[in-house]
Amino acid sequence: MKKLYTIIALSSAVISLAQIQKVEPAFWWKGMKNPELQILVYGKDIAKNEIELSDGIKAKNIQKVENPNYVFLTLNTGEINVPKFKINIKNKNKIIDSYSYELKQRNTNSANRRGFNSSDVIYLVVPDRFANGNPKNDSQPDVFEKANRNFDGGRHGGDLQGIIQNLDYIKELGATTFWSTPLTEDNEKTYSYHGYASSDLYKIDSRFGSNEDFFRLSDELHKRDMKLIMDFVPNHWGLHHWMIQDLPSKDWIHYWSDGEKGFKRSNYRQAAHFDPNASKSDIEGCVNGWFDSTMPDMNDSNPLVVNYLVQNAIWWTEAANLDGIRVDTYPYNNREGVTQWAKRVMNEYPDFNIVGETLMHSPAHIAYWQKDSKVGAIEGFNSYLPSVMDFPLHDIMATAVNESKEEWDKGMVRIYDVLTNDFLYPDINNLLILVGNHDVNRINDDFKGDIGKYKLVLSMIATMRGIPQIYYGDEIGMQGSKTVGDGDIRRDFPGGWKDDKQNAFTENGRTNIQKDYFDFTKKLLNWRKNKPVIHTGKTKHFAPENNVYVYFRYNEKESVMVVINNNEKDQSLDLKRFAESLTNIKTGKDVISGKELSLQNNMAIPAKTSMIIELKK
Amino acid sequence: MKKLYTIIALSSAVISLAQIQKVEPAFWWKGMKNPELQILVYGKDIAKNEIELSDGIKAKNIQKVENPNYVFLTLNTGEINVPKFKINIKNKNKIIDSYSYELKQRNTNSANRRGFNSSDVIYLVVPDRFANGNPKNDSQPDVFEKANRNFDGGRHGGDLQGIIQNLDYIKELGATTFWSTPLTEDNEKTYSYHGYASSDLYKIDSRFGSNEDFFRLSDELHKRDMKLIMDFVPNHWGLHHWMIQDLPSKDWIHYWSDGEKGFKRSNYRQAAHFDPNASKSDIEGCVNGWFDSTMPDMNDSNPLVVNYLVQNAIWWTEAANLDGIRVDTYPYNNREGVTQWAKRVMNEYPDFNIVGETLMHSPAHIAYWQKDSKVGAIEGFNSYLPSVMDFPLHDIMATAVNESKEEWDKGMVRIYDVLTNDFLYPDINNLLILVGNHDVNRINDDFKGDIGKYKLVLSMIATMRGIPQIYYGDEIGMQGSKTVGDGDIRRDFPGGWKDDKQNAFTENGRTNIQKDYFDFTKKLLNWRKNKPVIHTGKTKHFAPENNVYVYFRYNEKESVMVVINNNEKDQSLDLKRFAESLTNIKTGKDVISGKELSLQNNMAIPAKTSMIIELKK
Repeated sequence: MKKLYTIIALSSAVISLAQIQKVEPAFWWKGMKNPELQILVYGKDIAKNEIELSDGIKAKNIQKVENPNYVFLTLNTGEINVPKFKINIKNKNKIIDSYSYELKQRNTNSANRRGFNSSDVIYLVVPDRFANGNPKNDSQPDVFEKANRNFDGGRHGGDLQGIIQNLDYIKELGATTFWSTPLTEDNEKTYSYHGYASSDLYKIDSRFGSNEDFFRLSDELHKRDMKLIMDFVPNHWGLHHWMIQDLPSKDWIHYWSDGEKGFKRSNYRQAAHFDPNASKSDIEGCVNGWFDSTMPDMNDSNPLVVNYLVQNAIWWTEAANLDGIRVDTYPYNNREGVTQWAKRVMNEYPDFNIVGETLMHSPAHIAYWQKDSKVGAIEGFNSYLPSVMDFPLHDIMATAVNESKEEWDKGMVRIYDVLTNDFLYPDINNLLILVGNHDVNRINDDFKGDIGKYKLVLSMIATMRGIPQIYYGDEIGMQGSKTVGDGDIRRDFPGGWKDDKQNAFTENGRTNIQKDYFDFTKKLLNWRKNKPVIHTGKTKHFAPENNVYVYFRYNEKESVMVVINNNEKDQSLDLKRFAESLTNIKTGKDVISGKELSLQNNMAIPAKTSMIIELKK
Repeated sequence: MKKLYTIIALSSAVISLAQIQKVEPAFWWKGMKNPELQILVYGKDIAKNEIELSDGIKAKNIQKVENPNYVFLTLNTGEINVPKFKINIKNKNKIIDSYSYELKQRNTNSANRRGFNSSDVIYLVVPDRFANGNPKNDSQPDVFEKANRNFDGGRHGGDLQGIIQNLDYIKELGATTFWSTPLTEDNEKTYSYHGYASSDLYKIDSRFGSNEDFFRLSDELHKRDMKLIMDFVPNHWGLHHWMIQDLPSKDWIHYWSDGEKGFKRSNYRQAAHFDPNASKSDIEGCVNGWFDSTMPDMNDSNPLVVNYLVQNAIWWTEAANLDGIRVDTYPYNNREGVTQWAKRVMNEYPDFNIVGETLMHSPAHIAYWQKDSKVGAIEGFNSYLPSVMDFPLHDIMATAVNESKEEWDKGMVRIYDVLTNDFLYPDINNLLILVGNHDVNRINDDFKGDIGKYKLVLSMIATMRGIPQIYYGDEIGMQGSKTVGDGDIRRDFPGGWKDDKQNAFTENGRTNIQKDYFDFTKKLLNWRKNKPVIHTGKTKHFAPENNVYVYFRYNEKESVMVVINNNEKDQSLDLKRFAESLTNIKTGKDVISGKELSLQNNMAIPAKTSMIIELKK
């Protein structure tokens, strides 16, 4: 592929001398379950030429679109027996450009890769704000925005090298799985650091590093027996994506019709998907509207778009050996398009995992989006999306823990109430449960730095059904307010930059209070690692009384009792109430304090304290 | 049946000379779909005698229980060809007492009675607080509590005669269906006025009148082409119910075992029914616990109890010619027991209607309880309960209307959000939608007497899907605060008592502001009566913008546009947004103002105002 492209200005009467500017995917693999591959070939007026493949290979289809700079070649890779072949651009029987296309060998067991699951704990990082491992790449010539650490919406310099350098920190904490907000290039002129306005879906942003650095991150994680989740954004790309700048056809994005470019903001009314009363304009307003003015909304009812997105996901999964995908703004996609996307990716990797950002607020609405949902089935819908996010639990977690009085419907009852809805979910263990993320108020901000409250939340997140997800910095008590702005909840991790005053990545660098946060988190997450009863056990809970929530996780082999005393006063629990879960149990060991406990009569528990008790017969 | 029962104190060695004290049901009907009838015969030591039926009739079963004062006779009425037969109590071949049992003819079309439905508007009354038609029955010798109008928890003297005298008022208002809180005898010593602690399920409280008065109420309603709903309480009876005072067996109620009477309060955690994580103790705590200390919880897993309750419902339906039943505290019942109850009653009257008090707060939880619910089906449950109450809509109605600013997730958006859940319900038209009831804060109290807000709520309730239900007094702006107490939300209707200073039942008796409330309500409800498009039409709504909610009700023949401007400022609506619902529409008539409107460009609507526009092609 030619790196530079020279515009050759010729009148349309003159035959173009096309050169290949882009080929996507740049390479592919043999032996995929779906042998069909659709190759995008891009170059000035390329469609005005003939396209020919070497080695006698015939394309199943050569599709031209409105814009002559694009050609889409559909091949059956199952019929190709050479590791490399040529895509030739011919004009008047003369090859004027050529691209050598490679079909690589897949890694062993690639198809059977097992995705992240409830035995994991996910650590979420905003890469620009985590650690600056390579200060030389903070600003780059190929992208607009330069580093400016003094601006909370600017590029701060965090990168892949910084992440790789701190994987041992994440591992020590007890997280098993790494997820970061997008790493592909985002070439917006400002506010590009979050990466959600991608300008190239096949290329890591040069300020983060290279594709090879990302592959190295994957290797480094796997060396540590850890997993990698990549963030995908099928719903929208960045305004500066090269294809948006030169659309294949108007119907690649929404609200760009009749030759008129147009931004129309989404109405964000995600419930319109299942709302039987929804107007056509509301459902279109949700799925066709742009998430933001710099984020053109992809038309995933266009098969070329869906193909592009499916292949992009498979490409990264193969190339970077992913263990899972997180999908941004899931319900803003065209429902049929994103379903096809999920189905096709999962079809390629049946044991993989994909979690959708389902930022809705009622369990029925979340359950709707999970694969094989009976709520979805009410209107005949199956998302094929294996994992969804438990925002209803997150919504009330901080509020609940901040309510220390005894009230009928407040405090721990709020959490109990959310869990009574578990029957709505087809796969309760594949629910991502979050302490916080890059879009919400920092949990330790909700608690105004009260570590006792953090410990209650972490005790629950570490022992409830689902896949816990921690947001970088929560584990050292980082605060930040959504009201102040997104920058405030995405502050730089202390120690990620050479000139930082302290380095919380190291034990000695942590303040005493940071140590307390970190050590508590580390203890629970590391304990959780080897606890199948927490990963896949059943739950039995008891309606909170006196603001104390008691639940058991159990399987045939073991049983864990969790006691969350959210009351501002010490409590004495009459254990008789839990008799059905304490049959033949006499003692237990509190994972947090390490103490052996008698479980035969009453049990004392101090105010605002949790216990996680391994039960012994 | 002997009216008086003399206790004959004999030693157990001496044979009892039993006399029949009670027979329930006192009579029955021929030709029921289920020919089986179970007759309870009660008398001192009656089970120690022989029971014989006249006319060669054989009981299918004669069941004795722990308490020898009861016998349960099961008969096949299909095999009985006489209109009356005798139940003889025999001792040593001698008839010592006898009861003449009648099998009446059913009214024509009794089996095919059509229950209340979405063409109706229900008017709910607390009979003790509505109108005192017969001051002579305010206190009665056969019941403990005497009238005391100065006590807000006391008996105020309202009665059936008072209701009957004011049926024309209710009809004029535009309500089509009458429901009152229970009228059967409640012989608690205090707070008996609400009737939810019944002491006799077959007898109207003498302070309200007689069974005959209740039948007269039914006749008077039907004469006016109106319907009657009776309130049933299968979950609990009163502590002074004669059967509770002399239990057939300990397992008729919960927590009365091993000879020890015991009160245990319900935990009120209704979600335990479907909660897959629920402990046994929580589900038992909900369904077996007592709703209150004077309300023993019936054991509806006892077939005799279920039979008793089914027959009681059928008896009143036949005898009083009911058009529907409202069931108190539905989810506090044993799920299987109450389901059997509902199924059996509905089986007898396939076109009847029963609405359950499902006082829960999420649409999925309400939908769970409706017949043929796919939410219920997730765990294989079908309630057979045709109608449920839309408390989620009620929950947010006042809050929403009180929010007059423009905010992303507040004001009208709250109401829109509730309706996006409609897909969860199997029968959206059979959802009772309420302005208020006897258990919640008065809507006009929420609004601090702002009639403009009341008008917005009424505009919605009168035009949304479902069966509107008005709470007596709302239509004249009555206030009352739940925080002050139940008595305050159940104040006497002004004019119901002879010495009342004003009489709001008559136009001249109403204050100007009461007139405004009444006339608005009357206009909308009477308009609604003949609007099939409101009763059964589809809904199409548009996500609120600027705190203005617009929805359409439509069917093949007609279309109504409802505009609720909840904004504190006047608004100008760009009608292009609603084009899909305004195809070929040029004008409309606002039902409220009576004005003809052009619907071609923008439409002005004043602050905090509603419009209900009949569209014209």
